[in-house]
Amino acid sequence: METRTRKDNARARRGDTAKPAPAKTAGKTPAKTQAKAPAKTQTKAPAKRGRPRKPEKQMKISFLGGLNEIGKNMTVFEFEDDMFILDCGLEFPDSDMPGVDLVLADFTYVTRNADKIRGVVITHGHEDHIGGLSYLLKEVNVPVYATRLTAGLIMGKLKEAGIDRTSVINVIKPGDVVHLGGISVEAIHVNHSIPDSIGVAIKCAAATIVHTGDFKIDSTPIDGEIIDLARFAALGREGVTCLMMDSTNAERPGFTESEKKVGGSLEHIFNLAGDKRVIVATFASNIHRVQQIIDISEKLGRKVALSGRSLENVVAVASELGYLKVPEGIIITLDEVRRYTDDRITLITTGSQGEPMSALSRMATCDHRKVQITPNDAVIISATPIPGNEKTVGKVVDDLLKLGAEVFYSQMYDVHVSGHARQEELKLILGILKPRFFIPVHGERKHLSANAALGESVGIPSKNIILADNGTQITLSKSAIKADATVPAGRVFVDGYGVGDVGNIILRDRKRLSEDGLVAVSIVADPVNGMIITGPVMESRGFVYVKDAEELFDDAEELVIDIFERYTRNGRFDIPSIKNHIRDDVSRFMYERTKRSPIVVPIIIEM
Amino acid sequence: METRTRKDNARARRGDTAKPAPAKTAGKTPAKTQAKAPAKTQTKAPAKRGRPRKPEKQMKISFLGGLNEIGKNMTVFEFEDDMFILDCGLEFPDSDMPGVDLVLADFTYVTRNADKIRGVVITHGHEDHIGGLSYLLKEVNVPVYATRLTAGLIMGKLKEAGIDRTSVINVIKPGDVVHLGGISVEAIHVNHSIPDSIGVAIKCAAATIVHTGDFKIDSTPIDGEIIDLARFAALGREGVTCLMMDSTNAERPGFTESEKKVGGSLEHIFNLAGDKRVIVATFASNIHRVQQIIDISEKLGRKVALSGRSLENVVAVASELGYLKVPEGIIITLDEVRRYTDDRITLITTGSQGEPMSALSRMATCDHRKVQITPNDAVIISATPIPGNEKTVGKVVDDLLKLGAEVFYSQMYDVHVSGHARQEELKLILGILKPRFFIPVHGERKHLSANAALGESVGIPSKNIILADNGTQITLSKSAIKADATVPAGRVFVDGYGVGDVGNIILRDRKRLSEDGLVAVSIVADPVNGMIITGPVMESRGFVYVKDAEELFDDAEELVIDIFERYTRNGRFDIPSIKNHIRDDVSRFMYERTKRSPIVVPIIIEM
Repeated sequence: METRTRKDNARARRGDTAKPAPAKTAGKTPAKTQAKAPAKTQTKAPAKRGRPRKPEKQMKISFLGGLNEIGKNMTVFEFEDDMFILDCGLEFPDSDMPGVDLVLADFTYVTRNADKIRGVVITHGHEDHIGGLSYLLKEVNVPVYATRLTAGLIMGKLKEAGIDRTSVINVIKPGDVVHLGGISVEAIHVNHSIPDSIGVAIKCAAATIVHTGDFKIDSTPIDGEIIDLARFAALGREGVTCLMMDSTNAERPGFTESEKKVGGSLEHIFNLAGDKRVIVATFASNIHRVQQIIDISEKLGRKVALSGRSLENVVAVASELGYLKVPEGIIITLDEVRRYTDDRITLITTGSQGEPMSALSRMATCDHRKVQITPNDAVIISATPIPGNEKTVGKVVDDLLKLGAEVFYSQMYDVHVSGHARQEELKLILGILKPRFFIPVHGERKHLSANAALGESVGIPSKNIILADNGTQITLSKSAIKADATVPAGRVFVDGYGVGDVGNIILRDRKRLSEDGLVAVSIVADPVNGMIITGPVMESRGFVYVKDAEELFDDAEELVIDIFERYTRNGRFDIPSIKNHIRDDVSRFMYERTKRSPIVVPIIIEM
Repeated sequence: METRTRKDNARARRGDTAKPAPAKTAGKTPAKTQAKAPAKTQTKAPAKRGRPRKPEKQMKISFLGGLNEIGKNMTVFEFEDDMFILDCGLEFPDSDMPGVDLVLADFTYVTRNADKIRGVVITHGHEDHIGGLSYLLKEVNVPVYATRLTAGLIMGKLKEAGIDRTSVINVIKPGDVVHLGGISVEAIHVNHSIPDSIGVAIKCAAATIVHTGDFKIDSTPIDGEIIDLARFAALGREGVTCLMMDSTNAERPGFTESEKKVGGSLEHIFNLAGDKRVIVATFASNIHRVQQIIDISEKLGRKVALSGRSLENVVAVASELGYLKVPEGIIITLDEVRRYTDDRITLITTGSQGEPMSALSRMATCDHRKVQITPNDAVIISATPIPGNEKTVGKVVDDLLKLGAEVFYSQMYDVHVSGHARQEELKLILGILKPRFFIPVHGERKHLSANAALGESVGIPSKNIILADNGTQITLSKSAIKADATVPAGRVFVDGYGVGDVGNIILRDRKRLSEDGLVAVSIVADPVNGMIITGPVMESRGFVYVKDAEELFDDAEELVIDIFERYTRNGRFDIPSIKNHIRDDVSRFMYERTKRSPIVVPIIIEM
């Protein structure tokens, strides 16, 4: 594998790619080299044109999210005085963000430029592409452009968030071109694990950019249309300045299999299940998968019931808009399930990632109000664990097995295919677009690096490939690419009603609280006369029980009294010093005695 | 897949397998049916012998750990008045056990029967098989039997724990038979990811049990000896009552590849790395892997330095005992590395699971005292992430890539093989042992179930296969198996110096603290006269900042004062009610206002 080195990046960031190649000439060019002399050696501009007189037009690309992570995709494109946003997603919190509900991108760059933003274009309806919209639209009032299903899902989310501005949603379809000031955005049909996904061709006087969105190449998709390779090929012939491409599966060789394959597998498992009730867990938004499950159920004479709020929502929107073909009368409610024998029932449920509060997890822990698992259940987990979820998914499988259910899951059966392109597909897109510059997007660093290596393998010079980061601002012209500026970017935590009020200090405290707990030390003191009136009184949580460790707490109390004595000057307590020392010395004392470091909270009530 | 149903287990637990088959005869047999009439239909005892007169001798197997989990393997075997323990491992804590350092099995059943325990037999030197020994030997004084390398590793651990009883360690070798009262235990050589691993044949007058230990079948192992299939086959011919077999890889089809294959892969990557420094992360205990890395380094003229305490320990023990062949002068210290150019250096390091404090993680976050990562480093992560570690390993890869290093890891390269047998190997062992009864061990429920299905696939009747749990006690005779009793079993948490003092309530508090933080409410009160003297004073951690939410805390203070007023009877405070209501009502109030539920700690100082 060839990965881009730090040196390469530093070079790219310094903008070396835009400097004339022979070092000797550098001294002769004026300070504003990049703008005035962009005749970069790597350009293939016909020699006869000579050096352009005017500065080359430039476009700016600012990454607010989606790089070095899978989540909260959000990119701002900018040409002269016009800007638009591509996608506005959220990220689900990691285990190092306890208590956090959602993570958003930092919207500072957008709100600061609110008057230039002409719109938001959304590539598809997954949370990591639409989940931040309801927060964004509270801050800026801009039109949204999305395909029909995506728009339907967005409207549901806005309604839920109490935003009465569904009028700003503009429905577009593949082939449509949206003009956002001096920038045009063309929607191009792609295959993905949710219908109505698009990539975009972004054009302005400065450059043509193709952004694939999340995609795969599926020759036998459930909704009948293969990705619009013809349009990609045509764009390739017209000339693509820069490609931005999905990196999710760039580590994986070969081709991602067709969604149709899962249908065959599922049908086989349904047949194995025989007379049992079949329960299939899948992503709520995977409408193709839901379609296939409904089709198989119809064929086998099973009714279909749904469990999980997000699934019910998505199915409602998708059937209403015609993306899901639901035979009359096949859908029944969970309450109606009991009227049928097990062999006549399919349950579709959320929770394929083992999410603790999901319908499937509640079934597995006997905590679901309407569904009890029995040995006459065959459960299919039609998904692959997202990295980090392997253990929770494994636990759900274990719990279901303990209840006697038969469980079909990805480690043992072909119950899932990815929605993202693998190496051969990525190379194919690179091959037909022949971009001059390449920015891998949508992935952790290792995915971006692997995608960059694919770019090099098809002949893009490594200096024309940019491994960027959230906060990177790229300047792009027909002949040069530079990553030489930054914009505000970061993680904004949503916790309950709070957006942004939980920061790193609170998270650090939470982490320490979770590991070693807390000891609160309360004292009533007369600081002026240097007297402890009452106390110390100690309470602990998550550390050791006070009553199980009387000696420990007795000794700690003595230590606290010592500290008071030590920090008495002229008969007066030095309260700030005393507080600091209670915090540090009591924690250290606890560590020496227990090898645990609780957070110590001194509370001195002055009387 | 056929998995065992709950009904099957319930049946097994009730001991149905030992009851006479025709229901009508049941009434005629006396109450002690099982002991007196074990002529179970599934036995193949020659008919001429007729019904045995005396009760059949029985053996008991009690699982203290290792079932429905991967970790803390510990099983007690018992025949008449003699008992022995097979393995005594620890488990590393899950994310739902914050702050916990280690998890041990509950030793109650052992300490309660201390006078009957004749010894501990250890199958190999991995932590999940030896890690609990230093805790166990503090409670009971019994001899330990282990092969030479395993014994060496155990001695190191006992020394570290300050246990001066290395004299109780008895070194055995494959083929040896240890007599533990009326039970004999024979060591049988197996292949695994640490040398000197054994399975055991356990014999007494009641039964012959084969326990594979952790194993795979490696025809080209690094230490030259294939698993002793001949001995297994001989035991199969003699007759095996019960097989207990490693389930770790029972979900995976095919054969696990030979450790030698990794050597080829590693050499290929070393060649790709060219002039770069090579850093290989692997499990400290994988001595075969370390041997191969040393061999390749020698061939390529590289010196080898080690980083990571556990690695240094294992290498020291293994070279001293001759399990690692280290060419003279090849090992250098980390300080000596700077004397050589990068192309002459191999670093072997711990941290292949992305453990936050490990050497590799510290290198990746620029926090290692002696090793700085540069673009001239090629890092090989020679391991597969253990389920649950995918995210942390991914993060280390990302961080290393950001520093410009080239990274070779399991998703993209063949840098690891497992130490556990896959389906074809498991079936082979089942085939040559032909056990009457089968207990899958060493795995989560899904692994045990998959292994049970393999047992059925080779013809073992499902009623002869037991899916047990920690705490299950199995009674085994030549003709019957029952899982009809239980012994104390559970998780004992080690946190700092505390063994067992952290329980579920503390863990629940820690979890809640980590999600929503804490608010301490202190008040100085005169309960007798029903007067608040001072307060409330509020402090919070991990929730919101008090100073960022003045209004919130002002309102909460009013609520607290209200509660005091409400629970004043005849001019006296009802302190217990007040405490309860501060805890509940303030938490509810905070939830309504912030959608977060901090733990509220009321501290009432009575004056």
